[in-house]
Amino acid sequence: MPKSDLLYMQICSKIEGQIKNNILNTGNKLPSLRVICREHGVSMSTALQSYFHLEKKGLIESRPQSGYFVAYTSRQFPAQPATSKPLLTSGEEDIENIISNFTRNSADAKLLLSSGVPALNMMPEAKLNKAMVQAMRELPGSGLVYDHKGNDKLKIQIARRSLLWGGNLKPSEIIPTSGCMDALSFSMMALAKPGDTIGVESPVFYGILQLARSIGLNVLELPTNAITGIEIPALKKALEGKKINLCLIVSNFSNPLGCLVPDEHKKEIVRLLEKHNVPLIEDDVYGDIFYGESRPTTCKAYDESGNVVWCGSYSKTLAPGYRVGWVAPGKFMEKIERTKRYHSVSCNSLSHEAIANFLENGRYDNHLWKLRQTLQANSLKFLKCIGEHFPKGTKVSRPQGGFFLWVEMDKAIDATKLYDKAILHKVSIAPGPMYTLQKQYQNCFRLNFGLIWNDKVEAALKLLGRLAKEMV
Amino acid sequence: MPKSDLLYMQICSKIEGQIKNNILNTGNKLPSLRVICREHGVSMSTALQSYFHLEKKGLIESRPQSGYFVAYTSRQFPAQPATSKPLLTSGEEDIENIISNFTRNSADAKLLLSSGVPALNMMPEAKLNKAMVQAMRELPGSGLVYDHKGNDKLKIQIARRSLLWGGNLKPSEIIPTSGCMDALSFSMMALAKPGDTIGVESPVFYGILQLARSIGLNVLELPTNAITGIEIPALKKALEGKKINLCLIVSNFSNPLGCLVPDEHKKEIVRLLEKHNVPLIEDDVYGDIFYGESRPTTCKAYDESGNVVWCGSYSKTLAPGYRVGWVAPGKFMEKIERTKRYHSVSCNSLSHEAIANFLENGRYDNHLWKLRQTLQANSLKFLKCIGEHFPKGTKVSRPQGGFFLWVEMDKAIDATKLYDKAILHKVSIAPGPMYTLQKQYQNCFRLNFGLIWNDKVEAALKLLGRLAKEMV
Repeated sequence: MPKSDLLYMQICSKIEGQIKNNILNTGNKLPSLRVICREHGVSMSTALQSYFHLEKKGLIESRPQSGYFVAYTSRQFPAQPATSKPLLTSGEEDIENIISNFTRNSADAKLLLSSGVPALNMMPEAKLNKAMVQAMRELPGSGLVYDHKGNDKLKIQIARRSLLWGGNLKPSEIIPTSGCMDALSFSMMALAKPGDTIGVESPVFYGILQLARSIGLNVLELPTNAITGIEIPALKKALEGKKINLCLIVSNFSNPLGCLVPDEHKKEIVRLLEKHNVPLIEDDVYGDIFYGESRPTTCKAYDESGNVVWCGSYSKTLAPGYRVGWVAPGKFMEKIERTKRYHSVSCNSLSHEAIANFLENGRYDNHLWKLRQTLQANSLKFLKCIGEHFPKGTKVSRPQGGFFLWVEMDKAIDATKLYDKAILHKVSIAPGPMYTLQKQYQNCFRLNFGLIWNDKVEAALKLLGRLAKEMV
Repeated sequence: MPKSDLLYMQICSKIEGQIKNNILNTGNKLPSLRVICREHGVSMSTALQSYFHLEKKGLIESRPQSGYFVAYTSRQFPAQPATSKPLLTSGEEDIENIISNFTRNSADAKLLLSSGVPALNMMPEAKLNKAMVQAMRELPGSGLVYDHKGNDKLKIQIARRSLLWGGNLKPSEIIPTSGCMDALSFSMMALAKPGDTIGVESPVFYGILQLARSIGLNVLELPTNAITGIEIPALKKALEGKKINLCLIVSNFSNPLGCLVPDEHKKEIVRLLEKHNVPLIEDDVYGDIFYGESRPTTCKAYDESGNVVWCGSYSKTLAPGYRVGWVAPGKFMEKIERTKRYHSVSCNSLSHEAIANFLENGRYDNHLWKLRQTLQANSLKFLKCIGEHFPKGTKVSRPQGGFFLWVEMDKAIDATKLYDKAILHKVSIAPGPMYTLQKQYQNCFRLNFGLIWNDKVEAALKLLGRLAKEMV
């Protein structure tokens, strides 16, 4: 039974809707638990459970002796960044040095707000260990042998879950890979040749920039909106001007902006790329971490010709160190399958079987549900704290999923200098210039809110705010 | 204590030497066990142990009521293939189709003489399982987290073992990779650009050909001797003519020829490549499977300038499915480390720790010793059986390590047709044309003798011989 069918969740949705629509505002008193019981015809424990849930999400707060109050409305939050405006030429900035410095200096950070995955204590370690032991027991040869074809159980599970986003993939349409980066690497190598140009969002995850450059591709960064993703008119223009040979987008809760491409946009992106015969690599590595009612769709869901190469992994939701990802390469199956075979021979037999076991046992959805609740609550706490402690005018993205915030400060504030100052306090952020090959985003940085909220995290955000204020 | 210091091994070496040098010949009677006891001043059990060991290796046989007799001299064996003579231009043959057919059709084979690794039942499955459970218990986060820097324990073990081949690597000079193919892929991508030419042995493992082609490299196949490997004068000429930008050799027990490059040649290869400023990728994935007294050296051992990129893995000796390999990139550290980071982010945390545990516990050397004994004995049994049952004039390589034989039949016999006929009997071999981008080796095939010798294996070899005879 989906969680949303539970009585307490129905009550939560109703109240959450009223808060989001500003019918209930910050500080407003909520109905007492007794009133909730009477109005909804539920037991006291159900009423309590619903308020407890809303409190955990950061939407309401209990005040001793006084009852429950609305703690949040969106009006409290900082404004969102405007649509990005990269130059429409391939960038050439060398980001390797800044990234090397960043990687080296961040190694000692005690509070990692710059990481690319949620913290370990949000992951189901004990249950994954069980799945791994099961894999050792059940796999022929305890997983010592090659897995040339890709784990069949895993393919079935990925195919099954495609129904959640409106897809209907067959297991045979899926190639397991060693994480999503492997999938992106094989797809890029198979679909473009040195000198070609790849169109991407801007800002965009630096790993994608580095990968593209390393195989000799030029990168065209396209204007991107923090809410709706890549700008369709800009994409259209690039296609019509034959400026790009390949396109890569993170359609759901992109890194670093957190944008969620609306269904109509996804449909249009697929149509445009199909029309211009330009393949689309869809990196959907964050899609399972949605805060809304249901799993967002993908571009792949609207793909009728096989032009969309859908990639994902369990690195952001389960176990980065297991290296389990996949690609559904559409009509490029043969090319991408070959590239995988040439460059890697086989995936890790055991870890792929272990993840398949975990998924088969139905543990993933329960885990995801908890993870999403925690992350959504964190996003609100981070937003509120930044709104309170950062310089006036600081803009912050307001993601509907994932675990990244994109912070845009006053033009006068250099995020790399902010990084340098923060790292002296062992606090690490990810400076904006890493997310582009052009000279931009110097006043921006990315925050990872995928860690357990506590006084130290709050203190770190306050510290960042204070340091930023000193720099205005 | 090395095995060769044991009393029974000293006796074995002596007798083996006499057999190899034709002092003792096939059918000669050996001294009785009592004589061995008296002459060597050893106990009856030691004498028995030494004869038992020689029998296991296929060198002697016991005849009931009569004693022990020499079962083998090298004169019984088929002649060895001549040095290969590839054209000195880049080949363009499309081997993908033949390899696809081969892979598809071999899937159902019951007797896989075509595999690229020793059979599972030669691997220490139970002990690796223990090492894996230990890894889960001891790694922070049970190995769920990224392993960005590469497993430190593993680096130490690989560095330690470099002493065995005359190296003196530091842990910091080693980058763990997901198997050796990953190491070769990153090295090729980092050291060559599309349009460049890579020099390789001929015949050469098809995976290397496919990898090179997939990143746009031309391949220059160089004449190769089945005993001593790549021909130095040919390499020299290619370098002087500026025909190659990169060179890759399998220095120890190459695939498929099984050649062992002599120390003097290794030294000269390193010198020549260094002089012409052409990097050498050394694939040493079979080096631990030597039949001789000690681990053969590597080109890396003679490398003073860092021009040699030494690659290896535990896929051929422990666990192909674990994906544990490495590269020691010499002066190309930064380039190759970056390429790894861009294309794969991280290796599998658990399996790398598990292999490190296995090595730390000192289990590897014991395992290797047994593996080498079995493989050497198998090589002799295979050679003898082929000599007896294949058409006259069939030539076979005589490897001093590894687990591959290269069989060169009469020009009239098409190995691909032999494959087609054998696969109807569920016996799989690896046809020669896969090992070149030129039109050659049609009458050759590769055999994997890394499987437990039994009646079925013998019957399969006899079948192959019979089918080949029918094709003359």
